[in-house]
Amino acid sequence: MAAAAPPPPPAPAPTPNMALPDDSPLLHPLFARVRLATLLDVPHIHKQIHQMAVFERLTHLCSATEASLAATLFNSPPFQSFTVFLLEVSHSPFLDPSPGQNPNPAFTPISRTINLDLAIEDPESETFRSEEGVTIAGFVLFFPNYSTFLAKPGFYIEDLFVRECYRRKGLGKMLLSAVAKQAVKMGYGRVEWVVLDWNVNAIKFYEEMGAKVLQEWRICRLTGDALEAYRHFSDH
Amino acid sequence: MAAAAPPPPPAPAPTPNMALPDDSPLLHPLFARVRLATLLDVPHIHKQIHQMAVFERLTHLCSATEASLAATLFNSPPFQSFTVFLLEVSHSPFLDPSPGQNPNPAFTPISRTINLDLAIEDPESETFRSEEGVTIAGFVLFFPNYSTFLAKPGFYIEDLFVRECYRRKGLGKMLLSAVAKQAVKMGYGRVEWVVLDWNVNAIKFYEEMGAKVLQEWRICRLTGDALEAYRHFSDH
Repeated sequence: MAAAAPPPPPAPAPTPNMALPDDSPLLHPLFARVRLATLLDVPHIHKQIHQMAVFERLTHLCSATEASLAATLFNSPPFQSFTVFLLEVSHSPFLDPSPGQNPNPAFTPISRTINLDLAIEDPESETFRSEEGVTIAGFVLFFPNYSTFLAKPGFYIEDLFVRECYRRKGLGKMLLSAVAKQAVKMGYGRVEWVVLDWNVNAIKFYEEMGAKVLQEWRICRLTGDALEAYRHFSDH
Repeated sequence: MAAAAPPPPPAPAPTPNMALPDDSPLLHPLFARVRLATLLDVPHIHKQIHQMAVFERLTHLCSATEASLAATLFNSPPFQSFTVFLLEVSHSPFLDPSPGQNPNPAFTPISRTINLDLAIEDPESETFRSEEGVTIAGFVLFFPNYSTFLAKPGFYIEDLFVRECYRRKGLGKMLLSAVAKQAVKMGYGRVEWVVLDWNVNAIKFYEEMGAKVLQEWRICRLTGDALEAYRHFSDH
């Protein structure tokens, strides 16, 4: 991503049916889980970054490889630096790891059940099959930022991505909510990300989630040769 | 700061006279140095954050205290998380620390000599005197960010501040250049910050430094009660 979260699902997500009466039939339940990603997930993260670049018509700017992602991610404990949550989906319920079995005690996975009218046809379910036999459906990459006015850290979301066939089902909201919940848990002051000004559906979705869009601020970026020009700044 | 670097000196800084012939008289030399800040510098950083809030008429949003800054900054090695460079000025040259004497080997201080037409009257020189008897004139706070397209970290500059009597002398450029140089040294892909869209002088200054202003992106922010609402997200 070019310093930016990609557009989320183009329409506000329908609210997952969380308060389903016990006797409602689950015709097409989709079990969804958000968990911390690890180095082993890099191939799936890489494929999704490439899909995001295709969606944004920016493949010419995307030079990420599995090797370069593996070298730069997962070098710090979760939440202290660049952190990835993966979204997994399955036709069977996820079992909560028993205490002590959670592979990463820094974060307890968040599960939801979504009741679909129609089952999802996933043409890439084999490509995105994880080691545990479930399907990777999306991810969010975020890292700490800092506000001097609050004297508090926050989180900045660089990328939020849900694979095409899983969009408009509340899964983007589930990923974003997981980051917001983690920020609250850590006593952080803000969660921030960016959106394209013409992406009115995304803006509506974010505002419904409680975000304010700051209209006056513009991002400045120093990169490429213009950045390289500072290599010898002030060498004597 | 409200997720934003403050406006820089309102006019492009005059180029410091770096190629002064040996026989040019230095009528009013100002010796400037950029060094890593430490916990001991928190009182000076706090006072400058407050001055920045006054300048931006946002004191009602500024809740930072010396204690809250001390608790949240300087918890990681430089450059790995929130990092502060301090700008010091003096009427006498700074002595390069001898090898092994540099208090923080992660960063070698950068020094410049600026030849002024008129000596600067600093009404707050006592308030901003450092332990070494020099004057604190500004600071920059920055931290790593990440681009998934580049699969590389970068730096995000949260605050860039030069005290009022030292503006328009190339010192803001010196602070920003120090961050850019460090990014290049570490193999990072970008340096980014934000600017208010009506601050045309700042935008001109940044463009002259090689930055591009991204016109289409808007910042989204989830904070306060809207963030707190996610505390119990998906608790069963």
